[in-house]
This record gives sequence, C-alpha cells and structure tokens, in this order.
Amino acid sequence: MLSDAARQTQPQDDIATRFRAVRGLSLALAAPLSDADATAQSMPEASPAKWHLAHTSWFFETFVLRDGGTGYRPRDPRWAHLFNSYYEAEGARHPRERRGMLTRPRLGEVIAWREAVDEAVIAALPGLDAAMRDRVMLGIQHEQQHQELLLTDILNLFAANPLCPAMWEARRDPPSPAPDPIRWIEGRHGIVEIGADARNGFAFDCEGPPHPVMLTPHALADRPVTNGEWQAFMADGGYDRPEHWLADGWAWVRSQGISAPLYWRRAEDGVGWASFALDGLHPVRPAAPVTHISYYEADAYARWAGARLPTEAEWESVAAAIDPNSGNQLDEAGPVRPRTAGAGGPGLRQMFGDGWEWTASAYLPYPGFRPAPGAVGEYNGKFMSGQCVLKGASCATPRGHARASYRNFFYPHQRWQFTALRLAKDI
Amino acid sequence: MLSDAARQTQPQDDIATRFRAVRGLSLALAAPLSDADATAQSMPEASPAKWHLAHTSWFFETFVLRDGGTGYRPRDPRWAHLFNSYYEAEGARHPRERRGMLTRPRLGEVIAWREAVDEAVIAALPGLDAAMRDRVMLGIQHEQQHQELLLTDILNLFAANPLCPAMWEARRDPPSPAPDPIRWIEGRHGIVEIGADARNGFAFDCEGPPHPVMLTPHALADRPVTNGEWQAFMADGGYDRPEHWLADGWAWVRSQGISAPLYWRRAEDGVGWASFALDGLHPVRPAAPVTHISYYEADAYARWAGARLPTEAEWESVAAAIDPNSGNQLDEAGPVRPRTAGAGGPGLRQMFGDGWEWTASAYLPYPGFRPAPGAVGEYNGKFMSGQCVLKGASCATPRGHARASYRNFFYPHQRWQFTALRLAKDI
Amino acid sequence: MLSDAARQTQPQDDIATRFRAVRGLSLALAAPLSDADATAQSMPEASPAKWHLAHTSWFFETFVLRDGGTGYRPRDPRWAHLFNSYYEAEGARHPRERRGMLTRPRLGEVIAWREAVDEAVIAALPGLDAAMRDRVMLGIQHEQQHQELLLTDILNLFAANPLCPAMWEARRDPPSPAPDPIRWIEGRHGIVEIGADARNGFAFDCEGPPHPVMLTPHALADRPVTNGEWQAFMADGGYDRPEHWLADGWAWVRSQGISAPLYWRRAEDGVGWASFALDGLHPVRPAAPVTHISYYEADAYARWAGARLPTEAEWESVAAAIDPNSGNQLDEAGPVRPRTAGAGGPGLRQMFGDGWEWTASAYLPYPGFRPAPGAVGEYNGKFMSGQCVLKGASCATPRGHARASYRNFFYPHQRWQFTALRLAKDI
Amino acid sequence: MLSDAARQTQPQDDIATRFRAVRGLSLALAAPLSDADATAQSMPEASPAKWHLAHTSWFFETFVLRDGGTGYRPRDPRWAHLFNSYYEAEGARHPRERRGMLTRPRLGEVIAWREAVDEAVIAALPGLDAAMRDRVMLGIQHEQQHQELLLTDILNLFAANPLCPAMWEARRDPPSPAPDPIRWIEGRHGIVEIGADARNGFAFDCEGPPHPVMLTPHALADRPVTNGEWQAFMADGGYDRPEHWLADGWAWVRSQGISAPLYWRRAEDGVGWASFALDGLHPVRPAAPVTHISYYEADAYARWAGARLPTEAEWESVAAAIDPNSGNQLDEAGPVRPRTAGAGGPGLRQMFGDGWEWTASAYLPYPGFRPAPGAVGEYNGKFMSGQCVLKGASCATPRGHARASYRNFFYPHQRWQFTALRLAKDI
Repeated sequence: MLSDAARQTQPQDDIATRFRAVRGLSLALAAPLSDADATAQSMPEASPAKWHLAHTSWFFETFVLRDGGTGYRPRDPRWAHLFNSYYEAEGARHPRERRGMLTRPRLGEVIAWREAVDEAVIAALPGLDAAMRDRVMLGIQHEQQHQELLLTDILNLFAANPLCPAMWEARRDPPSPAPDPIRWIEGRHGIVEIGADARNGFAFDCEGPPHPVMLTPHALADRPVTNGEWQAFMADGGYDRPEHWLADGWAWVRSQGISAPLYWRRAEDGVGWASFALDGLHPVRPAAPVTHISYYEADAYARWAGARLPTEAEWESVAAAIDPNSGNQLDEAGPVRPRTAGAGGPGLRQMFGDGWEWTASAYLPYPGFRPAPGAVGEYNGKFMSGQCVLKGASCATPRGHARASYRNFFYPHQRWQFTALRLAKDI
Repeated sequence: MLSDAARQTQPQDDIATRFRAVRGLSLALAAPLSDADATAQSMPEASPAKWHLAHTSWFFETFVLRDGGTGYRPRDPRWAHLFNSYYEAEGARHPRERRGMLTRPRLGEVIAWREAVDEAVIAALPGLDAAMRDRVMLGIQHEQQHQELLLTDILNLFAANPLCPAMWEARRDPPSPAPDPIRWIEGRHGIVEIGADARNGFAFDCEGPPHPVMLTPHALADRPVTNGEWQAFMADGGYDRPEHWLADGWAWVRSQGISAPLYWRRAEDGVGWASFALDGLHPVRPAAPVTHISYYEADAYARWAGARLPTEAEWESVAAAIDPNSGNQLDEAGPVRPRTAGAGGPGLRQMFGDGWEWTASAYLPYPGFRPAPGAVGEYNGKFMSGQCVLKGASCATPRGHARASYRNFFYPHQRWQFTALRLAKDI
Repeated sequence: MLSDAARQTQPQDDIATRFRAVRGLSLALAAPLSDADATAQSMPEASPAKWHLAHTSWFFETFVLRDGGTGYRPRDPRWAHLFNSYYEAEGARHPRERRGMLTRPRLGEVIAWREAVDEAVIAALPGLDAAMRDRVMLGIQHEQQHQELLLTDILNLFAANPLCPAMWEARRDPPSPAPDPIRWIEGRHGIVEIGADARNGFAFDCEGPPHPVMLTPHALADRPVTNGEWQAFMADGGYDRPEHWLADGWAWVRSQGISAPLYWRRAEDGVGWASFALDGLHPVRPAAPVTHISYYEADAYARWAGARLPTEAEWESVAAAIDPNSGNQLDEAGPVRPRTAGAGGPGLRQMFGDGWEWTASAYLPYPGFRPAPGAVGEYNGKFMSGQCVLKGASCATPRGHARASYRNFFYPHQRWQFTALRLAKDI
Repeated sequence: MLSDAARQTQPQDDIATRFRAVRGLSLALAAPLSDADATAQSMPEASPAKWHLAHTSWFFETFVLRDGGTGYRPRDPRWAHLFNSYYEAEGARHPRERRGMLTRPRLGEVIAWREAVDEAVIAALPGLDAAMRDRVMLGIQHEQQHQELLLTDILNLFAANPLCPAMWEARRDPPSPAPDPIRWIEGRHGIVEIGADARNGFAFDCEGPPHPVMLTPHALADRPVTNGEWQAFMADGGYDRPEHWLADGWAWVRSQGISAPLYWRRAEDGVGWASFALDGLHPVRPAAPVTHISYYEADAYARWAGARLPTEAEWESVAAAIDPNSGNQLDEAGPVRPRTAGAGGPGLRQMFGDGWEWTASAYLPYPGFRPAPGAVGEYNGKFMSGQCVLKGASCATPRGHARASYRNFFYPHQRWQFTALRLAKDI
C-alpha cells in the first residue's frame, strides 16, 4: 500500500516510534475499565474492549510475526480462534455475537500478551523487508480503527447500564455561542479526480485507485447540522411523518420505536433532552453537531430541510484541500465529545473531527479496484454491499488516521458511532 | 413525466387502445388461475394475483378517476384499505404480509370491478387534461410492472406446492446448440450521458434527469452467463468457498442453506438438475441464461470467473443503441422461459429480454432527481436505499415496457424474479 | 377402543348411517366457502377448510381402506404427503405452516375424492372385521373433531379480513335476560372414579383407563362466566394488574398487547365492544358465556374473582350424571354462537355446549395409559406435554361427540377455539 | 411458613449461625471467579454470579431490613431496580436478559454491600418478631437456591468458552465399578398423604398443604439411569426415532439439533464422549447418573426403556422415609459432580443428591394452596404453568436444603441444571 517513494519518507525508526505510541494509546484508553467492563459485549456489532486489545495483537502476531518469518511462537495457539475477527482464510472463529462469553483469558493476560507482541515486533522491525514493514503500518492503521471502536463500543455498553457510569470525569467546556446559520459553499464540478494514490502515503486498498468522476454543480453546508437544529426537526414531527423517510427508514423507525438520536434521553423535567457520553449524562448542547444518528435519520433530516446528503465525490473533492489532521480528533485518553462550531471563517468547517459525515454514496469498489491477495485482502472488499460511505473523522478518531480519501462504512441503520451529517444541494 | 412534445405523438386514441390492450393482458395472464391460486400469498414480498388485479384497478380509480374529478364513485370505499400497496399519503393499509388472508372480495368481484374501472377510464379519457392523461400512461406502465410480478409471484406460489402444478402446458423448444464462448465487447468510456429525457417519451421519474458520467475503459460479455456455465461454478465448489463471496452474501448462503439457483431441484437420478417454471418441472437447459439468482450469487460468480458485474452506466451507455423492444419478452399469455442465445453475430446479445441483469450499481438518485409531488411521488424515490439496479428486461416483461434507461431494483438477496448476469471487466 | 359388548350395540348399519351423516355434515359446513376461503391458512395452528376435508378422507383411505386390505387404490399417492397431519409413522409431511400454499388439488377435486372414499368405505363396511369397524368409528370421531376445527379455523381466517365477511346470516336471538348471580354447587369429594371404560362405548385412548382419584371438598359455579362479568374484570384493570396473572401469562399479555378476548373489537362509539363471529360482527351480548379466552386469561379472572379453575376430576365427577348430548351444540350447518344461560334450575348448567371449559389440570396420561400400537397410537399420547385439559363441549362441537370423560387440550395461550371458564373454590 | 411449634425449635442464635454459614458459603463459591467471570451472562435463563450475590442481599435488605422496620438505609436506592428478580409488587426491573450488561457496581462493591447487609441483619435479629424471623429463614432458603443456580449458571458460562476453563481443579475419584442392573422397588399405593406440614419445619408455600392422593400399584427403579445406559439409548438411535418422543420434544430435538446431553462433546478420537463440568472437560463416566438432560429426553428414554417417569406423589411418598440430608450434596466450595451409585443395598438409592429427578407431574397448586400475601407471595405460585416438577436434590444443592416435599420446577426443554431421571412402571 505504500509506494517506494513513500517508504523512504518513513524510516524504520519512525515506524517503531509510531508503533509504540499507537499501542500505548490503546492501553491508556482501556485503563479506566475493570475486567468486567472490558469483557462485556452490549450487542453483536460491538466488541468487548478486551477483545479489541487482543484482536489487534493477534493481527500483529499473525500477519507480521508469523508471516514475516520471525521465529516468534504464538502465546497460545487457541487464541487465534478467539480473536480472529472475520478472516475466512485464517480458519474458523468464535462467533462474533458470543465475544462477551470470553471471560478468559483475563484482561491481565491479554495485556501481558500485548507486551510480548510489542517486544517481538520492535525486535523484529530491523529485519523486516519492505512488504512486512507495510504490514506493520497496516497493523498500526488497523489498531487506530479499533481504538475508535473501543470507545464507541464501551459507550454502547455503559449506556445499557441504568447507573449511567462515566468512563472519565466531564471536562468543563467554555460556554459556546450558537453557531451562525448555515452558509452554502460551492463545491467543485466537472471532471474531478478522487481516490488515494499509494505513492502519496498510506491508504487502505479500497481508497484507490485514483480515478476521474463527473460532478454536477452543487454546494455544501459550511458546517454540520447541530443538536439545536435537530430538535427543530423533532419539534416539527420529523420522526412521525413518513413523507420525509426512505421506505426502509420508515420501517426501521416504526419497528424500533425510534424518536431521537441514540443516547438521547428525556431530561427529568420531561421537556428537555440529555445525552449520554463517555463522561456521563449531560444536557444536550444545542450548538454542537448532532451525532449518533443513522443514515435513515440523516437522509430524513435533509429531505425535511429541502436539501440532500453530499455524495462521496462531492465531499472528497473539496476536502482534499483541507488538513485532515486538524479539528477535534482523539489525541489522548479522556472524554471525547463533538464540539460546537463557534463563529467561523468563510470556508468549510469541521470536515475532519467531531462526527463522521454520512454521504449519499454506497460503499462500492472504485473502477480498477483489486483487493490485496491473501487474508489481508479480506480487509475491505468483501464488505462492499449494503453499506453507506461516511467521510471525515470524529472526535474518537485518533489524530493522524484521517485522510480525504478515507472511506468509512456502516449499514444505514447503525448509529453507535459518532455519525453526523452535513447538508448539500444542487445549484 | 411526458413532455409536451412527447404528448403530441401519443394521441388520445392511442392511449385508449394501449389501455385496453394492457388491461386485457392482465386478465389473460390470470385466466388459468383458480380463485384459490389467485388468492394465496407465498411470501411477504410476493402478492396474490387477485391482489395485483385489484391494486392496479385501485391505482386507476384513485389517481385517475378520483384525482381527475370524473365524478366516478369508488366501488367500495373499504377496498382502498385492502389494495393500496405502499402509498403513505393515501392512508393506512392492510399489512403487506397478510394479503393472502383476503379471500374476499372474490376473484369474480375483482374482475367485475376491473371492468367497471375500465369503462369509466375509457369514458373519461376524452375529458382528461394532459396531466391526467400522463397519469393514465403512468397507470399503464404501472400495470405492466404488475403483470411481470403476477407471473413471478405465481411461479413462487406454485413452486411451494409439492405437486409442481403447471400454469401452462410446456411448449416444445427446438433443440438449441451450446452458445459460443463469451466474447468481450468494448464499452464506451470517457464522458457519456445516461438517464432518460422526458422529451423522448415516457420514463419513470427515477430514470432521469439525463446527466454525464465518466467511464473508464472496460468490456462487456456479448451474452449472459448460461446454466451450463453456472453448473461449472457449482462443480468447482462455488457455493462452498467464502473467498468468492461478499461477507453479506456468505452469511446469506450459510444461514439459508443456498446451493443452487432458486427453483433448481435435484433430478430424480440425483445427479442432474431440473428447474421449476410456469410450464412445470423440466431438466435444466444448459444453453439458456441462468436466472433466479441473487445479486450475491451473481457477484460471486463474477469473482470466480475473474470478472465483475457491469455498472449501470456501462450497461446503459451501450444499450442505448439497441432496440429495447427486441428479444424474448412477454407478448401474450403463455409459458415464459429464458431462451438460449444460439450462435450470434458480433455484437451484444440478449440485452433486452430473457433475464434482468444485475449491475454493480446501487439504486440511488441521479443528480438533480426530484420525486413528483403528491402520492405518486412515492413511486420510486423512497426505495432508494439498500437495493441494486438491474437493467434490460426479462422473458416476463411485457413488450413495450423496456428502455435502456429503465432502472429495475431489488434487494441483493432476492431472486424470485427472472434475474440474470452478464460479465464485465476493466481493460 | 370398543369392547365386544359395545360393538354389539353398534351394528354395521348404524355405522354406515352415522358415517354418511357425519361425512355429509362436513360438506354442508364447507358449502358457503369459496375455493379461496377453503384454501387460505390464517396461522400455523389453523388449517384450511379444504385441508380438513382432505385430511379426514386421507384418514379413512389410509387407516381403513388401506389397512383393511380392501383393494382400494389411493386417488393420488402424492396426496398422502399433503394431507397427513402429524403421523410420523406414515412418513414425511408437507409442513404444517405451509398448508395455505396448497391451491391444488382444487376444492372440487377434494370433494370428488371424498365421494370416492365414501363409496369405497360404504362398500367395504360389510367385509370389515371388528378391529376395522373400530377404525371406522375412530374415523367418524376424528372427522367430528375436524368439523369443529373447520369452523374455528374459518372464523380465524375471516377475522383477519377487514371486511368482516359473514359465513352465515345472523339469526335473530330472542332477547335474553341477565343470568342470575352464580350459585355454588358442591362437588363430589373423597374417592371418585374418573376416566372412560371402553366397555361403555367409544372413547379415545387418552380418556382411560378408569381409575380412582381423591378429591377434597369444593364447589363449582352453576354456570360459566358471562361476557358481562368479563367486562367488569376489564373495567377493574384486569389486563393491567400483574398480581392476577401467572408469570407466563403476564409475559404473554405484555408481549402480545392483549386487552380483551380474541375477536372483540371496540365498537364504533369507542366505548362498547363488538365481537366477530361466523355470522359477522355484532355487539357483545352480556348474558352469554365469554369465549375465545386463553387459559392465562381464565386463570387471571378466577384469581381476580377470589376463586380458581376446577380440576379435571372435579369437573368430570359431577358431569358424569349429566346428559352430554344436551345443550347448545352443533346440529347442522349454520351460525354457531354461545347462548345465554337464562334463568336456570338448581343444578349445573351449560356443562356441555356453548364453550369448552378450561380446567386447572395438565393434559397428562392417566395411570396405566397405553397408546394404541401403530400410527393411530400417535393420536393422543404424544401431545401430553405443555397443554391444559378442557372439558365439556362447545357450540361448534357436533352433537353426539361429547362425553364427560372427553379430554380436549390446548396450549395455555391458545384461544381461537370456543374456550370458556367456570369458577370453582375450596369449601 | 413456620408454625409456632417449629419456631420454638429454631432459637434466634441458630438462625444467626445458619445465616452466617449460608452467607459465607456464597462468597466461597464465588471466590475463584474474576470480576468478568462474575459479570457475564450466558443466556437469558442464567444470571451472572455477581447478580446472584447482589440479588440475595437485596432480598434481605428489602424483605427483612426494610419490612422489619430496622432503620437500615439501603446502600444505593437505584440498586433495587438492578437486583430485583421478578417481584412485580416491588416495581420495575432491569430486564432479565440484560443482566450481563451490569459491569457496575463492581464485584468488590457488591461484596462490600453483602458485608454491610450481613452486619445489619445480625444486629437486627434480636429485635425481629416471629414473622420477620421467618423472613430471615426464607432468605436463607432463598440464598441456598441461588447457590445452586450460581454454580449451574457459571458452568453454562464456562461451557461457552472454547478454552474450557475449570473453576476448580479436578478431584481424583476412586475407580467405580459398573452399578448393578436396575432393581424395581414397589412404591406405596392406595391413599397416601403428601405435601409439607408447616408444623414440621420450614417449607416453601407451594409444598403444602398436606393432602391425600390415591396411587395405583407401581414400582420405582432403585437408582437413576447412568451415563452408560444413556449411551446405549444413543447407540440405538434414541435421538433419531420420533416414536420415542413427545411431539413437543421431537420438535425441540429437530429444531435445536440435539443429539446428546448438554455439555457432552465428542472426544478427540471421534468415538467416545467427554463432558464439561466445573473441574473441566473429562471423559464421560459410565457408572455415574446421567445429568443435564431435558424432560423431553428423560421421557423419551423412559419410553424407549418400556417404562415411564414417576409421578411426584409416587416419588414423595417413598422418599418421606429417607434422610434428605444424606447423599452427594454440596457441603463446601469445590468441584461438584454426580457420583456413581456403586453396589448398593436393597432399597432406593441416590434419591437425594447427584441429580434432580424429573417427574411426570406438572407443577400445579395443591388443593387448598394459597400464596403468601404481599411481594413474597410471588415466590412460587405465579410460576405454576408449563413447568414440570423435579424431586430430590443434586450434587450442587446445599446440604440442609432438601426435603421429600420439595418441589423444584423447570420448563421441559431446560437442562442446564443437574437434571436426572429414575424410571418407574405400573405393576
């Protein structure tokens, strides 16, 4: 995934440094968790924190230490069965929806295993060839993805506990003024090129190859939709009027009894709303971007607002000019929450950070896409049906992981990630 | 949906003639059915034949006779509740999965109702304004869609009966030679325009507006995949090897125990295969296109064959030059079956007729798409999530209904339609 | 099942006469049904009327004509697969929940088959040995059971149609005064004998052997609970207060949203109640016994009323002195409805007829019970788990079918039969 | 539940001693468990060990400390919501199937809570009136029930882990000879009295009142069915032949793919069987009683063996003469397993201990049964539908908890308890 040119700019020492930093952040994120917190699974799509810690170690153990011929002996050969996620080429797996049954190995054993794997990778690094160093980079990116999932999965678990436990103490935010009304920023149209070029640095296989697309004239909102705006949608009967909804979305709203974003709860006065986050239950902040909404909800809001969701290409073609490492992303262990836009300059704001933005685009292969051979080829390609593309980054995305070409993807009903929306329209 | 120019080419008399012909064909298709055959529902996605006959009449009664202010009084105001399909704007509906409970009104009553509606529409036609004449055209196209569904739904019902009842006697096909191996036909690339222009004749709202897309170099197979080729896929363990399958597809194959196209059954010798059709159970014909396959199966086959599915734009841009009324389509009541390609000329064959071809494209709105206002605006737009586009026409599509811009759509696991596949590849 | 003595009292001619009468009644009951009415299946537990007509014919064809060595050739050997209900010893069967898919054979074909079977049985009767004549008697009793099911299954189907079709025109009942308050009638206690003795006439295997049981002092209500009394239970929050309910019952009420007997619907004024029956939708008659209630509901009512359900032995030991052919039972094709008790004499009323009465007893084998050998041994014994005993007879039970020892049985949540309740208490 | 006479034989000090012992055993049983082990829930019917520890404390906190007016303040008023099991009168509850989500309060907090409750109960004991001392006794018996559940629930959880973790090290059993063939022991017949008399010591409300029943002549096997005998049933196709099975049982076997007792797994040689227990995975011991079988399996075995299950009254009337504190029951924390019968004397063996024995009797109220008023009245009575009675005690039943009149009850498909069977027959 890295071109030779890109490799030269990432010397071995940098990889070791980055490897250590990323592996360390995972442990720091899990530090507030008890053995039980780290083991429970709240729903089939979510995994226990311990499982994330173990699975990412299994990834390095298997695809670097084993495939790299380092002579390393797996800690326990039975663990591959437990901690393989979905790689069919790696054999049978413990069923995904039963990960919460794995009270053993204990959290302490998994952490000890991590340390052993880390030492072995560090020791092996100087001897790895370029392809295996790419694997280490892939493992680092992979671990960053699981850091975000670890946080969102714990949030989902803690939300299932009537005691509303907080993972971290709440930080005091300065009071934030209501954001300005949305401004429309014209996007690029005509033939534009999107997709990642491997010569420019790491990217997942599904982000390429680069290719031209044809865009018609359109504009994007300068910032995401806020909680306050979402409450206006709710007050206008947004969840009760089928004309705003896709047929699948309406069936979902009705069968699941959906009437607010995930984690929103009626405040004790019965009027306002609170939302649950990793720092506990707090009143909804009107100026911050709405998050934890499904594609169906995002689409219904856009329709209600007389707008639409941007396509992936519309989003990516303007985001390419913005620094993907800016914005409200994850830097260290601690509470993560979307922040208010505040008063802004003339351009697009919050494109990276705060919340992943649903697009109108299905997650499908780009022209010329070929998955990598072998087990790692299962990384992305086989998920290309039924899912929607999200762009940008969230407050739980480790800084350094984002790219304009990044293609995050979830099913249209899923909303336990920090999912948000930005409006678009034809002009 | 019709421009003024197009309307001028479709004088009133033509509409009446076409209306009578289409309405008559529906009755002819249902003629072999008993009251019970026409009432039973085999699965939630399929509707009883009687329901199709009634729903299409309700469509004219509501959107033409009522909306057109013709003074017509509905046969029975309670029937709207029974025969509205999914128009939220028209109020509550009998649940879709319980349509088979509607043993009353009887088939005879529904047919009498049809006749009354037909007379009223014919009588009203001279007084209808252009918009209402468009509605009649929409109703005609709508009825043609239900003619195809009537056939595929009855096939599904009869397949659930161990007696394998035949709707029509089998026709003797002349023996057909094995088709030539696939030839690759280069498609159009660069900027091409797709989508229907309402000035050129009737099209559903979702087929437009016309717009440019950018295509990369590619080729399409000159004909669909045949049953014989499909058997080679099966013999090579196609249904047992996860590496060919999308993750959702593999989960579907495993959980549903899928190992052959729908309606295929082991022949009595335990070796060969028979397939069930509207003329009964017959040996699988190797030279005919494979049908009744899901998107997942089509995609897995393509992967196994080292190819891929065409995108909608790739397909449409070359189909625009082919007569959509050619090929094996539905002309009259009688057994419908895909036919063998036979030896062919140098170009694309069987693009229209035989089987609907799965594309790699999600069913999403075109740039600038706006649904029609009011209830008829629910016709297409609200289904734009989770479904895949199919192009062309099948042996059960009424001739005169097909267009290159036509966008048929189904969920990726569905296969009770005459669904087929054509390979594509990058070049 | 018949002793020699009993056989002597049932000469061959009587069997023939009874056979003809019972077979004829089945046809008369089905006469108002269209082919579609007779084919549709409203839920897995209910069967299509056509299926009942066919299954009872299959029973005679198999267990009399085939087992009796009469030389009769089955109409269509494939039909056994379709119309075997649950006899494992007779081979694989069409799945119960898919009986509504059997639009073929048509109703006319099934009726023609019935006639052929009837002729063959009549012709064979003189040559049948005693065991086979017992089989004919078993078949007659079996057919009577299916007559009741045919009526209750059609009622369930018609209730699923928003048009509320009536099978028969409503008869005008004379106005009925409110019944007297319940009087308590002391039952028998000490050692009493229950269970059928085969020497005294036909009984199903599960009704015997006769055996002593020990009863403690108790009393039974002189009549069943009425609709008016049930409305008082509802008005007192009966369906909303968990303290009245068994845990399984409460879970059922909550998960299914139960708030009234089956087939009760709010009257148009939003205050009163109507109930749907075979003669259409009519206001609930307060003086008639409540029917279409589950065991859970019956038990909750009894608890609310400070009473309990009678045990099977309590019921049977006093019912043995009452003529089982008295009361409101089925005599001919026509609307069936529970009737009001009216003013009554000093004893137990409505023990046979109107509604089957839930007892507190589980359906379990009597001491010394042995199922008959062979397939007919599957008739009763294998259902002896999880079900409750009901005693008496209903307005849909063919007259001549009832006995004090009769053990009807259903699962505690089922209520599509004419199920009723009579209170009991310890004294 | 205790008569005055019985109370006099249980002075306050004895209660305190017993209270301390029982509360201490719960902690000892949980001692090998990690926080995660104690928190995970393997299925809706099973509860986490931490939940058992908390719920039993809630029981004392609520029904003794609160109801006894001791002035004790609940540790955390929100915990009642979490740890109420099923007492509707005590208000809304955390859903049973989501108990595994309760990672907080942590195991340590729950243990600290236990200690506080224990101190408060001990301090309050001298001042409690007789009714409240009965509540303490009820709480002790209640806690013993949860000790058994704690063990069987943990077994179920550990069985879901492919690593087969052992809770305790295996003890070396002396080699055990095959037991003698079954001998038939004649039971009591005629009028016998069963049911607990509260004057004779503690019993749950459902065990009484004492009452006469009439039994017909019969015999019981002198010992339970062994694993070796069960393997003969399996070898004879026991799980594949519908004629042995109740209809509900056969549906269960087919739909769940049942082919052996729960926790049995094919040994690595593919021929023999191993079974998983709290001391890990070990070869099946042929001489020990078979356990972890459903009622359906027990009934099918009995039918295959030409016998039947005993009724509750048959079992209890002979068990009354046997010391219920004898046999293989739970004395201290450590591995529990059914033991072999060995060569035995002339009488009934293993009636108490090793495994709970399924009876042919439904769990229904005895004549004259009245639940206690208030919330504790929900203890037993509301479960009297759909469940079967088991008698005796198992290797996981705390010694001192068993009585001949004890009525354990489970649904017929459940088998995660140490469930066993003893044959009976009519003579």
